[in-house]
Amino acid sequence: MSAPSESVEPTTLVPEEPLIPAPPQPPVATAARPAIHTPEPQPARPPWRPPGPPNPARSLRPTRRGGPIPGLHHRPAVPAEPAKVAEVDRRLEAWAHEHDLFPAAWKGDFAGFQFGRAVVLQHPGAVDVERLTAAGKLLLAENLVDSCYCEAEEGRGGTPRGLGGRLVLAQAAIDPFHGAPAVEEQWRRGVQGDGPLRSYHQAMKDFAAFATPSQSDRFVHDIARLHLGYLGEAAWAETRYAPKVWEYLVMRQFNNFRPCLSIVDAVDGYELPEPVYARPEIQRITALACNATTIVNDLYSFTKELAGDPTHMNLPQAIAANERCGLKAAYLKAVEIHNEVMAAFEEESAVLAATSPLVERYARGLAAWVAGNHEWHATNTHRYHLPNYW
Amino acid sequence: MSAPSESVEPTTLVPEEPLIPAPPQPPVATAARPAIHTPEPQPARPPWRPPGPPNPARSLRPTRRGGPIPGLHHRPAVPAEPAKVAEVDRRLEAWAHEHDLFPAAWKGDFAGFQFGRAVVLQHPGAVDVERLTAAGKLLLAENLVDSCYCEAEEGRGGTPRGLGGRLVLAQAAIDPFHGAPAVEEQWRRGVQGDGPLRSYHQAMKDFAAFATPSQSDRFVHDIARLHLGYLGEAAWAETRYAPKVWEYLVMRQFNNFRPCLSIVDAVDGYELPEPVYARPEIQRITALACNATTIVNDLYSFTKELAGDPTHMNLPQAIAANERCGLKAAYLKAVEIHNEVMAAFEEESAVLAATSPLVERYARGLAAWVAGNHEWHATNTHRYHLPNYW
Repeated sequence: MSAPSESVEPTTLVPEEPLIPAPPQPPVATAARPAIHTPEPQPARPPWRPPGPPNPARSLRPTRRGGPIPGLHHRPAVPAEPAKVAEVDRRLEAWAHEHDLFPAAWKGDFAGFQFGRAVVLQHPGAVDVERLTAAGKLLLAENLVDSCYCEAEEGRGGTPRGLGGRLVLAQAAIDPFHGAPAVEEQWRRGVQGDGPLRSYHQAMKDFAAFATPSQSDRFVHDIARLHLGYLGEAAWAETRYAPKVWEYLVMRQFNNFRPCLSIVDAVDGYELPEPVYARPEIQRITALACNATTIVNDLYSFTKELAGDPTHMNLPQAIAANERCGLKAAYLKAVEIHNEVMAAFEEESAVLAATSPLVERYARGLAAWVAGNHEWHATNTHRYHLPNYW
Repeated sequence: MSAPSESVEPTTLVPEEPLIPAPPQPPVATAARPAIHTPEPQPARPPWRPPGPPNPARSLRPTRRGGPIPGLHHRPAVPAEPAKVAEVDRRLEAWAHEHDLFPAAWKGDFAGFQFGRAVVLQHPGAVDVERLTAAGKLLLAENLVDSCYCEAEEGRGGTPRGLGGRLVLAQAAIDPFHGAPAVEEQWRRGVQGDGPLRSYHQAMKDFAAFATPSQSDRFVHDIARLHLGYLGEAAWAETRYAPKVWEYLVMRQFNNFRPCLSIVDAVDGYELPEPVYARPEIQRITALACNATTIVNDLYSFTKELAGDPTHMNLPQAIAANERCGLKAAYLKAVEIHNEVMAAFEEESAVLAATSPLVERYARGLAAWVAGNHEWHATNTHRYHLPNYW
C-alpha cells in the first residue's frame, strides 16, 4: 500500500529473502460481494485515566504479532494468487532496474513491503497482470517519493524543510509543463533527475497508456491532494503544531490512499465516466472509502510509527492530545471512528449502487480495495505489530 | 487578477476614493476575435554585462508610469463597461461585509485593486453580472488567502513557516471533508474560522450553484495546483534556493492564474465537457494561455516586488541569477520568453479551434481572459510601474 503518512521502508526489487507466501485465506463465495463479516465484539471502554502525558513506551510492547485489530469492522479480501503476485513482483523488479529507481544499497525490503501482494489483494477485478503491474508502479512511485522526499526518519534526504520545492517538481513529473520548446526540453530532462521523479514520470506514462484522459487527470488531481497532505503534515511536524482531531482527519483526507483507490475502474478495464465520478454523492463514497482505509493504516502502523518517533502524529495521538486521555483509550476511540466511516461508506454506497450497474461496479471496486488493503495490513507482520491493548 | 506570486495589497470593499474610471480604450471590431496587434519593435539586445550581482536599485527607477511593456506581444481587450464594473464592485462589497471577510482596518485598497474592473475585462462574454460577481468572489478569495497566509511582507500573519498546514485546511474549505457526522460538523465550522477560509468556502458555494460538478472539480484541482505552487515558492524563499529558469517556470505553472482562466466556460454560461477539457491538446492550450498571462504578471509587478524585497523571486530575477546577466537584460529575455509562449498559445489554439465550435469558443474565452488581464495590468498604475529599461 501507499502508506502516505508513515515511514516507508526502503524497497528493493532484488529480495534478499523469498517473498513471504500469502497465508491461507478463508474461501470467499464470490469476489463481487464478500460475505458479511461480523466484527469481533468491541472491548468495553477502558476506565477513565487521569490527564497527563501519554506513555508511548507502555503502548509499544506488542503482544499480538498480527491478525485483525479486535473490533475493527472489515471485510474479508479475495485471496491473492501467489503466481500472479510473483509475476507482478518480477515485472516491478525489471522496471525498477531499467529506470534505476533506487540504489542497490537499498536492497532488502521489497519482500517486506510486498508490492505485488498488495496490488493483487487490492484489485481482485483487475483485467490483467499488465494493469496490476501499472498499479504496482504507481504504488512504488508514491512510496519512493514519500520515503526520499518526506520522511526524515528514513535518512534518505527527506525533511519537512524545503519539501514544497521538491513536491512541486514531483507533481510536475506527472503534470506536464508547457512552454517554449527549449524550456520544455529542460523540464523533460529535469523530471528524470532522480529515482523518485523517474518513478512518478514513468509510472504515469504507463498508466496513461490505458487510462482515458479523464482517468489520468483524476489521478493527477489525487496526487496533488496527496502532496498537499504531505505538506500539511510536514508543516505541523516542523512547527510542532498539535492539530485538533478534525484538523488531523482533514489533513489525512489529503495525505490519503485516494490515488490508489480512484484508479479501480481503470485497473478493472472500464471507466466510471467523469460526469458521474464528479457527482457529489460519488465523490462522497469515494472519500469515505479512502478515509476508512487510511485510518486503518494509522491503526496498524501505530506501534511502528511511535517506535521510530514517539511524537509521530497519527489518529490515536491526536485523540490522546486533544482529549487528554491515554493512548490506549485514544486507540480504541480511533477504531470507533474508523467503524463509523466504514459503516457510512457501506450504507451510502449500497444505496447508490442500487441506482446504476456502473456505480455498483465502481463501489464494489472501492470495497474490494478497502478489503484487500486491510488484509495486507493485518497479515504484513514484516511491517506491523499491534499494541498491547487487548 | 489573482496575482499569486506577488504581494497582494489589502483590499477593502469600502473604497476611500472613487473607483478609478476605466481609461479610454481602443475600439475593437469584434469581441470574439480581437484585431491583431502588432507589437512594438523589440529593442536590440542590450550589450553584454560583466557577471556580478544585479543592482536592483538602478532598475527600480520607474520612468514609465504605465501602458504596455514595449515589445510585449498582446491583444487589445474588450473595454470594460463602467456600469457593470460598479455593479460587480457593489455586490462584492456587500458579500465581503456579509461574511466579515477582513477587518475594517484594511480599508483603502479595494479601489486600487479594481476587482470589478478585473473580472469585467477578463470575461467579456460573461452571461450576466451574477456570474461576473461569482468570478470576482473567487478572485477576491484567492487574493485574501495569498495575502493572509503566504505573503510575509504584508504583515497579516503570512509566512513560509507552517504554510502547508494552513493551505491544506484552506483546500478543505472548497474540497469537502467526509467522515462521521460530528467530525463533519467540526470541519464545517472550522472552515469558517477566518476570513480567508470563509471567502474560499462561500465563493465556492456560489460558483458550484451554477457550475457543473465537473467544472467545480476542475476548479478544486486548479486551486490544489495553486497551493502547491505557493508552497514551492515559499519553500524556496525559506531555504534561499535559487531555482533554475525551468524550475522557476514549472513552479509558476502551478503558482498561476489558472484557476481564473479555467472557469471561462462556466462564467460564459456553457460547459466544455470534461472529456474534451481533459484531452492533452486542450490541457496544453489551457496551460500555455495560463503561463503567458502569469509571466505578464511577473513583468508588470517586477518593480513592485523588488521594491518590497530585493530578493523576491520572479522570472527576470531567475534569469539574471542563472545567466549571470543584469536585470535589464534578464527582463528583456523574460519578455521574449513570454512572447514565445503567447505565440504557441495563439498558433495551437487556432488549429484546435478550427476543429470544433465548442473548442473555438473555449479558446476564445482563454484569449479574452489573457487580453483583459493584460489590459488590467497595463492600466493599473495604482499597483504597477515599469522599470527604467527603454
